[in-house]
Amino acid sequence: MKSLCAFLTLTIGLACPAQSPAPVRVQSARIGQHLQALSEFGGNPQGGVSRVAYSEADLQAREYALKLMREAGLDVSIDLAGNLLGRRPGSDPSLRPILIGSHIDSVPEGGNYDGDVGSMSAIEVAQVLKEQSVQLRHPLEVIIFQNEEGGTVGSHAIGFGLDDKILGLVSQSGKTIRAGTGSIGGDVGRLAEAVRKPGSIAGYLELHIEQGGTLEREKIDIGVVEGIVGILHSEVTIEGFANHAGTTPMNQRRDTLLSAARFIDQVNAIVTGIPGRQVGTVGWIRAQPGAYNVVPGKTVLGLELRDLDQSKVEDMFSRIRAEAAKIGGRNQTTFTFSDAVMTHPALTDKGFQAIIADTAHGLGFSTKTMPSGAGHDAQEIAHIGPVGMIFIPSIGGISHSPKEFSLPKDIENGANVLLGSVLSLDRMK
Amino acid sequence: MKSLCAFLTLTIGLACPAQSPAPVRVQSARIGQHLQALSEFGGNPQGGVSRVAYSEADLQAREYALKLMREAGLDVSIDLAGNLLGRRPGSDPSLRPILIGSHIDSVPEGGNYDGDVGSMSAIEVAQVLKEQSVQLRHPLEVIIFQNEEGGTVGSHAIGFGLDDKILGLVSQSGKTIRAGTGSIGGDVGRLAEAVRKPGSIAGYLELHIEQGGTLEREKIDIGVVEGIVGILHSEVTIEGFANHAGTTPMNQRRDTLLSAARFIDQVNAIVTGIPGRQVGTVGWIRAQPGAYNVVPGKTVLGLELRDLDQSKVEDMFSRIRAEAAKIGGRNQTTFTFSDAVMTHPALTDKGFQAIIADTAHGLGFSTKTMPSGAGHDAQEIAHIGPVGMIFIPSIGGISHSPKEFSLPKDIENGANVLLGSVLSLDRMK
Repeated sequence: MKSLCAFLTLTIGLACPAQSPAPVRVQSARIGQHLQALSEFGGNPQGGVSRVAYSEADLQAREYALKLMREAGLDVSIDLAGNLLGRRPGSDPSLRPILIGSHIDSVPEGGNYDGDVGSMSAIEVAQVLKEQSVQLRHPLEVIIFQNEEGGTVGSHAIGFGLDDKILGLVSQSGKTIRAGTGSIGGDVGRLAEAVRKPGSIAGYLELHIEQGGTLEREKIDIGVVEGIVGILHSEVTIEGFANHAGTTPMNQRRDTLLSAARFIDQVNAIVTGIPGRQVGTVGWIRAQPGAYNVVPGKTVLGLELRDLDQSKVEDMFSRIRAEAAKIGGRNQTTFTFSDAVMTHPALTDKGFQAIIADTAHGLGFSTKTMPSGAGHDAQEIAHIGPVGMIFIPSIGGISHSPKEFSLPKDIENGANVLLGSVLSLDRMK
Repeated sequence: MKSLCAFLTLTIGLACPAQSPAPVRVQSARIGQHLQALSEFGGNPQGGVSRVAYSEADLQAREYALKLMREAGLDVSIDLAGNLLGRRPGSDPSLRPILIGSHIDSVPEGGNYDGDVGSMSAIEVAQVLKEQSVQLRHPLEVIIFQNEEGGTVGSHAIGFGLDDKILGLVSQSGKTIRAGTGSIGGDVGRLAEAVRKPGSIAGYLELHIEQGGTLEREKIDIGVVEGIVGILHSEVTIEGFANHAGTTPMNQRRDTLLSAARFIDQVNAIVTGIPGRQVGTVGWIRAQPGAYNVVPGKTVLGLELRDLDQSKVEDMFSRIRAEAAKIGGRNQTTFTFSDAVMTHPALTDKGFQAIIADTAHGLGFSTKTMPSGAGHDAQEIAHIGPVGMIFIPSIGGISHSPKEFSLPKDIENGANVLLGSVLSLDRMK
């Protein structure tokens, strides 16, 4: 793809960053220092962090992030939903804000890159703009969303709002979302005011680690995210009859674990049997009563399907249910599927994808357009404005683990693409 | 098969029971009353009993059984291993004893027939012999073995002896076998003396419910047990890698639950793919970490194989391990099998099988020669002398459940076959 900068050079005579005497760039070492300092909050002896939202470690990390945001010259506050916000005014008061950010909470026994890379890089972008005295036309908002790992809570509060059902859920910290949001400075009585109107932002850009192994394996520098996949969950219950495993002949059994086994194999066959990047997983299973000498009379398992195309997810689910009925019929067991819980796919903006790709190419990076298999705050913000996401390689594709790792060079690359994309977006929107 | 009685009539002029003026028969109503009374000890509101060995309910039931044994004219005692023993002298002091019996302990939430039918019928046999003033040549011993459900403990103590490993096991009651055996009147310091010498008994006969559905389904009155199957247990561990289910492409996964699924299906295919009555079961499974959105990195499951022929069990196990290696190779997962724990098959005596079948036919009952898929005290006693087992139908094949049930008529039939077999054995041995 032709560089956007080269195109602008030809059409409006703009100087490309590579040709300007002092291109605006992030400081890799500083991002590394900030990530290192952040890793101390909730750090585990075996590596990685346990910094679940609303924990003491989370509160301390948020204080640290606020300090960095102040140092970057941002006007900091905690919004009504408990998100950390740092504002930088633009030159044109009529323009809507550009948002950049991510999250700093972790899963239990998580790593030091998921969320942290995007958060520290967004602050670095603000820091560089301040140091280089770059005046944007749009207001810039650096936002660190609260409790991403517990269900993109902070961004959902802005994109859709938090209802009583969500507020009543108990988070990993042991606190409800309601109590947790209150404990970090949110105002649970005024959450309705935290919701932003669709069309009220110029856009949102998020840098994140891939969390999969595709970029590393294919030796690609930057992933241009085309969307965040939709996720279907269904609890599958298989009922048969629990019988003595010694006295019940093979042809008289109603063995639900055998049915479950054939089901799991068929889920795999159906998901891998069509072209595309969809995934399907059975991640948990319980067979009852659960003894060597009893044919399992009841088995329950969890089915998950993901794809960017919701109709493909629904089609796979339909085919899986049809196959389950056949499997059940063969040994007198019955399959029941709970109502599917569906998180809808969220597509990124095509224009943003082009900005990210052009910026990356301008910096000499290779890119790949790809879905995000994991959920992100961007999927919530997509409800109120265009979003774009930048991925960098995860070594070994490992995430949600102390072994999660991304190279400093890749983090620097990603942060520079974020910075360059903000500058492009500011010029174009 | 020609009736043994008809044969004896021709050869030695013995009168057949059917032709004698007062054939010796059990009293069905009395067995029913005793079973009813026994069901009160540990009876559950929803039906069935929880009368695990060494519990208060077990102690009370044992007292009740001792009372019935005394009423039947038996000389009662508790042997060194805690088994209940009722002796009746024979006319020939040089002859070894004939043993009959079963057990009265239950699994948690068990039924009222497993063990109870054989125990109450054995006492009924003694009661009838007393009432009818039948003098046997052999001494008769009615024996109620302790803790059958916890691993045929009482009969193992007689057949093989209890070692420290067994004595240290914690039983369902919460007590160790050692403490439990002491609490019911056994002498744990003198257990070595409880072991009986091979060849020291004339034989052992046990009436039991089938616990499977074959007799009912085929409308057969009496099962003639040809042996108690050998049982192999192996814990199978499958290792792969736990990865994010959203970001890990299907072809990059090392999904242990998928491997387990294909394994379970292949166990079934191997076991059902050869002629015979062998069974194979995967009754329990654990997939870790066990969440919708994580590819299971480790799965552990329990494999059980049973057959009368040990070499067939070993052959199936060998084929299953070979298949597992292939399955593992296909998605980079590894299978590890724990050392197989094997209970060896115990065959019943061919002569006893003929006595049982002839007795049943003489009473007008249909018979079927069949293996016992479940373990029984008889398998332990087979180590010290010839054994025979009589099965009666289990309605629906249900056992180890409050729904366990056998018809009063079938219990009566079984008890009469037990009685007749004792009389035949007494004449023949």
